[in-house]
Amino acid sequence: MNNDVYKKSLELHKENRGKIETTSKIKLDSREILSLAYSPGVAEVSREIARDPSLAREYTLKRNTVAVVTDGSSILGLGNLGALASIPVMEGKAAIFKEFGGVDAFPICLDTQDTEEIIKAVKQIAPVFGGINLEDISAPRCFEIEERLRKELSIPVMHDDQWGAATVTLAGIINSLKLLNPNESSSIKKEDIKVVISGIGAAGVATARLLSIYGIKKIIYIDSKGIVHKDRLDLTPEKKELLEASELAPKEGTLADAIVGANIFIGLSKPGVLTSEMVRTMAEKPVIFALANPTPEIMPGEAISAGAYVVATGRSDFPNQVNNSLVFPGAFKGMLEANISQFKIEMFSKIAEALAESVDNLSPNKILPTMFDKGIVEIVSKTIQNYK
Amino acid sequence: MNNDVYKKSLELHKENRGKIETTSKIKLDSREILSLAYSPGVAEVSREIARDPSLAREYTLKRNTVAVVTDGSSILGLGNLGALASIPVMEGKAAIFKEFGGVDAFPICLDTQDTEEIIKAVKQIAPVFGGINLEDISAPRCFEIEERLRKELSIPVMHDDQWGAATVTLAGIINSLKLLNPNESSSIKKEDIKVVISGIGAAGVATARLLSIYGIKKIIYIDSKGIVHKDRLDLTPEKKELLEASELAPKEGTLADAIVGANIFIGLSKPGVLTSEMVRTMAEKPVIFALANPTPEIMPGEAISAGAYVVATGRSDFPNQVNNSLVFPGAFKGMLEANISQFKIEMFSKIAEALAESVDNLSPNKILPTMFDKGIVEIVSKTIQNYK
Repeated sequence: MNNDVYKKSLELHKENRGKIETTSKIKLDSREILSLAYSPGVAEVSREIARDPSLAREYTLKRNTVAVVTDGSSILGLGNLGALASIPVMEGKAAIFKEFGGVDAFPICLDTQDTEEIIKAVKQIAPVFGGINLEDISAPRCFEIEERLRKELSIPVMHDDQWGAATVTLAGIINSLKLLNPNESSSIKKEDIKVVISGIGAAGVATARLLSIYGIKKIIYIDSKGIVHKDRLDLTPEKKELLEASELAPKEGTLADAIVGANIFIGLSKPGVLTSEMVRTMAEKPVIFALANPTPEIMPGEAISAGAYVVATGRSDFPNQVNNSLVFPGAFKGMLEANISQFKIEMFSKIAEALAESVDNLSPNKILPTMFDKGIVEIVSKTIQNYK
Repeated sequence: MNNDVYKKSLELHKENRGKIETTSKIKLDSREILSLAYSPGVAEVSREIARDPSLAREYTLKRNTVAVVTDGSSILGLGNLGALASIPVMEGKAAIFKEFGGVDAFPICLDTQDTEEIIKAVKQIAPVFGGINLEDISAPRCFEIEERLRKELSIPVMHDDQWGAATVTLAGIINSLKLLNPNESSSIKKEDIKVVISGIGAAGVATARLLSIYGIKKIIYIDSKGIVHKDRLDLTPEKKELLEASELAPKEGTLADAIVGANIFIGLSKPGVLTSEMVRTMAEKPVIFALANPTPEIMPGEAISAGAYVVATGRSDFPNQVNNSLVFPGAFKGMLEANISQFKIEMFSKIAEALAESVDNLSPNKILPTMFDKGIVEIVSKTIQNYK
């Protein structure tokens, strides 16, 4: 099947010469309209913006336009393929921005992978844009780049690999907890559940931070060396921070050790790392987010056979797809429309709650909305706009 | 009248929230199409481009997309208003690119005016683009920026303020010479005519270089200090180069001194510098290009009264508009379609000849085509594609 998808995708890209185009909103079919859209009339628009820079939002594309910025260092699951190879992905993202959110977006694929140079380049191109969507930038550079740009720019900045995955995962967890507590008897409270996160890259770190904000703090982290614990000497600042914020203080061990008694597994790591045996050692009615793409940490069928109650993946061909596209079009739409200067992590928690709330007929096979569900973009956008 | 144009232009920009938008060429209305335009299918497109970078031209927007890059240092005739105020002008340029040339274009308004930083930023954003249109960057930085980028990038780079004005001016001169030599008796040869250029900024320097390539070499240059001559101690490298290339070796003096006996005046300078008295001292049937905008070096009516045979301006409300838009959409279209790696100055000379040739019913009031004339973009594009 995949080969067919790949072949068709190449054909689609070749036929259309890519996916996005820039078009004039004004038909330039007479001297008169040209004199208004361009010289001499446009001079007055420039003068007005020079007088009051905030008018760039009123008179130009800025208000509705987002840059989709990457350095090509971590493209999909493919790794560091560089700027040119990232173009089709960023173009696809830009197309989704417009088709689903009505937001204009343009790919900026930078020919540098140096943290300071990326920060500088994004600041230099920022005037035209109302927001910056960072994409497929590898950890740990992505953390500093996002943090610095949020401080140094006056337009919203979001690294989608972090907050998209994190927000939809939290939405799925919220609904999984509802399913586990059908009578509001609250046998399983968010404060008490034990979560294991495998993979502490961009999405893993953001998911952990977001769960903590939401009130889920009993978390064990697994990276390529096993359990993240305080006696390890190789911890990055992010891992130290997560360890400090967790209410659990695990010792040296493997995923198999950590998973015993866990309520929720969140995999943002590698195919196949979670086995049926491990699932059997989890708490009653275990919830599995196996988000490695395209091959998950455990295949849904195998997880269900081993007793999993809910299984979510990153794939559209299984139930419960954790899909970033549920978040970014509406999130930027809301920021742009309400002219909010910067994202806050609490906003993503509120979006997760709203996405969870939007699901009718909640069931283990339906814990998340899909991007084709009506009103999703509006729900996310309004949540941002109503955030105080 | 101008106030009305300005008011209407502000309204047009506000109603439309700018002028360009980015749209998806593919309707994303099903899971299947999403799986081809985005994940998982797009992964194969990225892999293919990583394998063979030249395929970015086949599979992405790159092939048909130009960056309209400015630092906001020399916006229209308004001066250094900065990046934000430049957006409406660059957006207008992008709209003209698409509406007239079918070329996708996106504004890049850089928040830096440092030569090295501009060069670096343009190189960093270059992967997405098939060409770079530099715009409204002040002299002398524009010369180094264009030259360096042409050497250091493998996509075509053109500073439109230089080559747009220069090319159309040369086209107008070619047709003026035809009018002056109706019987092919060649009483006035291009090698013999005397030209005075007032204003040695971006457009002035490029026009001089292009005239020289075409074979017009008897040129006197005027800057804010008067005649450019070899004994001056304040000459920039560009002025020294032009002086060396000229077959005239003028001494200290003013425009009034230089203009005596000249066949052609080219003003790319300031309103009102050319007087009726000066026109009266020119050669028989003088040709005047008074291109300062919006107010020319001499008003057409005044020039005609003083004996001018041909008058061209930058304005659309007088005959013979020297309009850059005759050149850039077709020039980039040709470069992109034929995959030519870099502009050469000789190409602009060929374009000027083709534009001149395209004018039917040549007369002193009709020495140039207009951008609404059918086939102009194709004529320019084909000239580029046929250039050997």
